[in-house]
This record gives sequence, C-alpha cells and structure tokens, in this order.
Amino acid sequence: MDGKRSKLRAVDFDPAVFQEDVYYVSVNATLNERIRDYPNWHDVRAFIDEDKYYPTMGIDRIMVCEAVEDGVIVDAGSAITVDVMNQGVYQGGFIALGIKAAQEAYARLSPALEVSFNFEVDLAKMAKNTPDSLTVGFLAPLILKIESLGKPIYMSGGDARLLSRFFGETTVDEDLIFIGMKKLIEKGVKC
Amino acid sequence: MDGKRSKLRAVDFDPAVFQEDVYYVSVNATLNERIRDYPNWHDVRAFIDEDKYYPTMGIDRIMVCEAVEDGVIVDAGSAITVDVMNQGVYQGGFIALGIKAAQEAYARLSPALEVSFNFEVDLAKMAKNTPDSLTVGFLAPLILKIESLGKPIYMSGGDARLLSRFFGETTVDEDLIFIGMKKLIEKGVKC
Repeated sequence: MDGKRSKLRAVDFDPAVFQEDVYYVSVNATLNERIRDYPNWHDVRAFIDEDKYYPTMGIDRIMVCEAVEDGVIVDAGSAITVDVMNQGVYQGGFIALGIKAAQEAYARLSPALEVSFNFEVDLAKMAKNTPDSLTVGFLAPLILKIESLGKPIYMSGGDARLLSRFFGETTVDEDLIFIGMKKLIEKGVKC
Repeated sequence: MDGKRSKLRAVDFDPAVFQEDVYYVSVNATLNERIRDYPNWHDVRAFIDEDKYYPTMGIDRIMVCEAVEDGVIVDAGSAITVDVMNQGVYQGGFIALGIKAAQEAYARLSPALEVSFNFEVDLAKMAKNTPDSLTVGFLAPLILKIESLGKPIYMSGGDARLLSRFFGETTVDEDLIFIGMKKLIEKGVKC
C-alpha cells in the first residue's frame, strides 16, 4: 500500500517472486490456476458478501461498486457497466456495449454504417448525417438514462474520460477498482 | 392501389411481367440494375425533395418519414432508426442497433453475455442478473430517449410490435413505408 504501481501482461508474470501477502482480484482463468497454490495470495473475492450482488456479476464490477457508498458507477471498457449504490447497498445495474463494440456492430450491419463516431457531436440535437446519427443513437440514450438515475456519477475504465465530456458533472477516477479492493482488505471480514 | 399485396424474393421476381406503371423504392442494387431499362418502372425517390433529408439517408427511412406529418418515427429492423417530423419538416434523427444486432454484439464481447434478452423485464428497475442487465442496458436508454422527444410515436418494422410493449403509447403501423410512398405518388411532384 505504498502507492507503487506497475502493469504487466499476465503471461509475463511470475507469482513466485512475491514473498509478502498479495491481495488480488482476477478474471483470468489461466492466472487463477497458476496462483491457486500460493498460500500468500489472497483472493479479495472471499471478502465480499456475495448476497449483496448477483452470482454471475463480474468481480471487477463488484470492486468498483465497493468503492462508492452512494452514486452511479460507470465502468466504460469493452462493455459499459452501470451500477447504482445507495448508502452502501447495491441497487442493481445494467450493461451497455462499449464504444468499440457498438461501432463494430454498426459496421457489421451495413458498409454504409462503417464510420467512426463523431465525439464532437451535440447529443441534444437530432442528427443529419451518418456519423452523427450513429453517435447520437448510441450515446444520447445511454447518457440520458445514466443522468436520469439522479445520483452522483463516478466513472472508470478506458473510455471514462472520453465519455465524461458528455455528462453535466462526473468524477472520473481510474482507481475505483483499487479503492474498492483496499476498502474490502481493510475491513478484512465479510461486510 | 386496390390494396392487394404480395411478398416475393427479389431474385424470384421478373420486372417484365408488369405492363402497368409501377412505382417503387429499392435498396437492392442488383434489382435496380435489372429494372433500370423498363420505362413503366418509376423510382419514387425522384419525387422526394432531397434537400429535406440528408444525402446518405436510406430511402426506406425517408419513406416512413413521409408518412408522418408530426411525430417520432421508429423503424425497428436490423437497425432501429428514429426520426422526428415537425409539421412535415424533417428534424433529424438517429440510428440505434437492432435487437438482433445488439444481442450478437453482447455475445461477441464474452461468452458470459451470450444470453437472450428478457422481454418480460421491468425497464424501470435496475437489473440483478445477466439477461436483465443486457435487456435493460440496451432497451431502457433507447426507450427513455424516444419518449423524451415528446411527440406521438409511430412504429414500423419487424420488431415494432415487440418493442411497442415498452412504450406508454405508440401507433404500430406496418404500412408506414407504403403510406409514405402513396402520399408522394399522389403529390406526383417534388414536395
């Protein structure tokens, strides 16, 4: 917890080099197999009260929720997950496509729709060309829905900064997942 | 215009059998080639004031707009086009993915998201399982946006009836495209 951070490819990474206790979350099944036998590796998943969430909910999504006591948490990556926390209690959420996945899905429908989004578009207006029609069609409904939830918005994930410009007010915090993990580790017990 | 209707595959169809005047719209480039040389075949596209719309806008989408003087027109097929008409003037629109395209795009993101939408879901609630999360994530924003446009809603296309159950009030009319064509043919001049 000294704030040092590094990023490695999972395949380039040897779990045996760590002597100290390691607290982790992982969605990588191969990595999970490799670290299972190290007694100093602790899966933070064990600290979650699973009843609070739902069984198939991704562990990364649970962690960003744990970071926020009250608000809407938007994790904008390959998918865009939107979750609501109310006084520490999970209210449910939904999953939209990520920006890249949406653009690819439009392109698959027709060569005419194989265009890049226009991130300068005014989402409040109806569109009158193809790039704007797709950008408004994907982003305007999603952002309207998120804002209609009426809570402070916290954003994380690779597209958080890009998306945040379309919101009135949001907090972009790339560390939400680590904040969630740290909170759980410090509690150290099922919450 | 005696109301008779039939549906044929474009390949099974011989343009030469018609002696009378035929008014058509077509998005099929091969068919367009085949009918180009028949003088009794009239492309209804010629009757449109193209300035009213935008150059790359699909002819089918223009036709459903022509059917409605004032309202939101939702054509729910492989894509879901949403267009706004105000006293006969096109205001612009947007394009969302169709239901099938959206489900396929989710499935491509992860095997965990390869599930069917739950069309019984309550879109007003946040979801707590995967099928509901995807259904709410795709439909709730789109329907909220369409309803926020504050005009009467007209729906057409293969998924119109399925989608209509999520709206407060809508008119489902599979004939919008033909109504638009008929209006244009009857005017018979550039509008």
